[in-house]
Amino acid sequence: MPYFDAASSAPLHPVAREALLASLDEGWADPARLYREGRRARLLLDAAREAAAEAVGCRPDELVFTPSGTQAVHSGIFGALAARRRVGRRLVHSAVEHSSVLHAAEVHEAAGGTVTQVGADRTGRVAAGDLAAALGPDAALACLQSANHEVGTEQPVEEAAALCREAGVPLLVDAAQSLAWGPVPGAWSLLAASAHKWGGPPGVGLLAVRKGTRFSPQGPLDERESGRAPGFGNLPAIVAAAASLRALRAEAGAQREEPGEAARLRELVARIRHRVPELVPDVEVVGHPEHRLPHLVTFSCLYVDGETLLHELDRAGFSVSSGSSCTSSTLTPSHVLRAMGVLSEGNVRVSLPYGTAEADVERFLEVLPGTVRSVRERFGVPAAEPAPAAEGEAAAEGSGLVVDALGKRCPVPVIELAKVIGRVPVGGTVTVLSDDEAARQDIPAWCAMRGQEYAGEEAAERGAAYVVRRRV
Amino acid sequence: MPYFDAASSAPLHPVAREALLASLDEGWADPARLYREGRRARLLLDAAREAAAEAVGCRPDELVFTPSGTQAVHSGIFGALAARRRVGRRLVHSAVEHSSVLHAAEVHEAAGGTVTQVGADRTGRVAAGDLAAALGPDAALACLQSANHEVGTEQPVEEAAALCREAGVPLLVDAAQSLAWGPVPGAWSLLAASAHKWGGPPGVGLLAVRKGTRFSPQGPLDERESGRAPGFGNLPAIVAAAASLRALRAEAGAQREEPGEAARLRELVARIRHRVPELVPDVEVVGHPEHRLPHLVTFSCLYVDGETLLHELDRAGFSVSSGSSCTSSTLTPSHVLRAMGVLSEGNVRVSLPYGTAEADVERFLEVLPGTVRSVRERFGVPAAEPAPAAEGEAAAEGSGLVVDALGKRCPVPVIELAKVIGRVPVGGTVTVLSDDEAARQDIPAWCAMRGQEYAGEEAAERGAAYVVRRRV
Repeated sequence: MPYFDAASSAPLHPVAREALLASLDEGWADPARLYREGRRARLLLDAAREAAAEAVGCRPDELVFTPSGTQAVHSGIFGALAARRRVGRRLVHSAVEHSSVLHAAEVHEAAGGTVTQVGADRTGRVAAGDLAAALGPDAALACLQSANHEVGTEQPVEEAAALCREAGVPLLVDAAQSLAWGPVPGAWSLLAASAHKWGGPPGVGLLAVRKGTRFSPQGPLDERESGRAPGFGNLPAIVAAAASLRALRAEAGAQREEPGEAARLRELVARIRHRVPELVPDVEVVGHPEHRLPHLVTFSCLYVDGETLLHELDRAGFSVSSGSSCTSSTLTPSHVLRAMGVLSEGNVRVSLPYGTAEADVERFLEVLPGTVRSVRERFGVPAAEPAPAAEGEAAAEGSGLVVDALGKRCPVPVIELAKVIGRVPVGGTVTVLSDDEAARQDIPAWCAMRGQEYAGEEAAERGAAYVVRRRV
Repeated sequence: MPYFDAASSAPLHPVAREALLASLDEGWADPARLYREGRRARLLLDAAREAAAEAVGCRPDELVFTPSGTQAVHSGIFGALAARRRVGRRLVHSAVEHSSVLHAAEVHEAAGGTVTQVGADRTGRVAAGDLAAALGPDAALACLQSANHEVGTEQPVEEAAALCREAGVPLLVDAAQSLAWGPVPGAWSLLAASAHKWGGPPGVGLLAVRKGTRFSPQGPLDERESGRAPGFGNLPAIVAAAASLRALRAEAGAQREEPGEAARLRELVARIRHRVPELVPDVEVVGHPEHRLPHLVTFSCLYVDGETLLHELDRAGFSVSSGSSCTSSTLTPSHVLRAMGVLSEGNVRVSLPYGTAEADVERFLEVLPGTVRSVRERFGVPAAEPAPAAEGEAAAEGSGLVVDALGKRCPVPVIELAKVIGRVPVGGTVTVLSDDEAARQDIPAWCAMRGQEYAGEEAAERGAAYVVRRRV
């Protein structure tokens, strides 16, 4: 049963499993102790740190292990902000960062700091110049991911690091999604990553703080991991994480010209990117076409409920994830898709683990069209939108049609809009009333896909009123 | 080779190992996902939570897993303090808590909170009444360990919880050392523990917050673990931790009358407690004689350098730990021994893991006397202290002898004191000049052991001047 959600968590790599088993026997003691079990644990820890540092491209004494990638991001952000408090309290980050960055920024803002978000384009890519322009004189830290976790777009980290260095501001790179494929180039100051994304066990993150970067760890700490990650370390998992990172890098061939697994997965992803829009009508493939991770592809299907689609794909044997609002507990679509201004309904993220079989991808492409069709049929979506109304009919109905979709969840408001657009004269408007958060994002996205004009949002007694002007 | 440092970290229990292996295959996916791998992970997580909650004595929805016991303590303290901020900002804790409590208290104080430490008696036991008396009207939280990690003394947690409840103040119990042996009785509000102390893998702590306890998680969080522990959970380790806790409890028989492993280890520990002072001269066995953990015993040897003793015991095949200053990087003796007012030099903590063989304990008792003797010989400690000086000699030398031990590390200042005490007339004083932090604790402790009077500390140009009056 193909698992296509490596970007959430990858199954344990065989090398990681073997290393974990060995270090459960050898590495359970406290590496700070002087007796033989402690010294043995210390040797394992030192070797793991050296291997991880080599893969990251830093010195071993610049790297500490944390209990998760999330905690590495939190520790890195707060440690860097605190150390530069006298310079300023501005945190600059892209709008498409992982939620761990966004949560840290919220805490910083609540504590009196300032936060500037830098937008991304429709491919999810952040312009390095935009990041640099947002720094200003009071910037304490900038954050930019190496590649986006939802749409796979790679960010211009090397360029951003150079501009930040010029401005004298440290750059923290969240490399969670890309570290398996190669080191992050450039003069970044801090880097965070997470082992379970690269086939290591859960419970291990890493934080690198390059020499010369001012850093002041926050919160209660102890003497472990240079005072940057409190609590007894998870040594067996750390050893396994380092071993699998090294193994994956060798397989990926990422430092040469991708002759290995990375190139193979990139070809499979390209196949999905090209064939899904051919096989399924009304699909938007999102993310940058070239600057992208080798293993990840995301697309959104108009008129489809994300949760039902995931459920149907699961029944067909495929495990994928989604940034649609209807698949999460928050009722809010993915902030990444929102920042990109692309459709969020019927969103599917496919992220291929190492060793994904070509046949599984082909089978996915076979199954997908029928699955989408059956979900759409449940919502009563017509195969094609109604033909433009005759001159007379349009005139009779007049402009200013109102669709009441209050109380209806994604994708219904967009479906209702599509059902009536044919009755609106070209140049006339239709207003959709909706209290579903996803409509705010998906109605403009639908307009962009359909060549219609999104005329803006108006206040309404309940929810909001979204005005669309018919152009074609 | 006997490992006698279970209180630092216990080797993985066979049940934990088996559970870990199984859940590496079944539990690597994100339990928040809707597809089958995610649902399988969710089932494992739910079952682990139920098992752990049963062992703790709380409801499953009151318990979250954290990346370590240290982080459970930190989250518990800050969450409880923040929720009661309007009541007051006083944190009350015993002076013998684990360093994770002390570190959290330092952060609280630095942020403008107040901290009250409650002392312990010479056995390391805290009086529940003292804790209650320290609460006052502005107390936000009280912290008391279930049992001490260095000397094994059990605390009157049930009584303290009742008094705290009466005063309307929540009590957080650090149960790291005792949870393997049984649930913590009484009406505590919060409880923290650490799996690698009970034969679970590292990387798992737990925090229970009983319903009705006001709690406001601090720092950046996400939707995981009820918003109380951010980051991707370490599911395979959580499953293993819960499995081993259940297995240990069954073996310990802790809920009946200790017919199992707990009683067996308690007997071995009693043997060490009774025989060490018979076998080794000038030893102080510390900790409460009855209210104590079944598996842990601590003693200190006069005129012995802790690091050398540990090294020699390690060479003889025994792994133990020490609260002596000379075994740590801080040059400060254990805060627990200091709070108890007992000797810190030549300190040895023996904590027996499950299944410790009786023969290994016997062998330890055989090896110890010669090991201590050889360390003492290196320091030139006379077998017995010099006989009292003749009347004439004492008069000639007069009172007010000064021993200059500046620049000399533990145990030298105490050895120098012992060498000259015979030359001091009864009623006369000797002053020891020392800049070693351990002297502040060990000179009074030596006086208590020897029946001499510690007359106090005086300012000195370098270090401090410790005055001892000869009584016997």
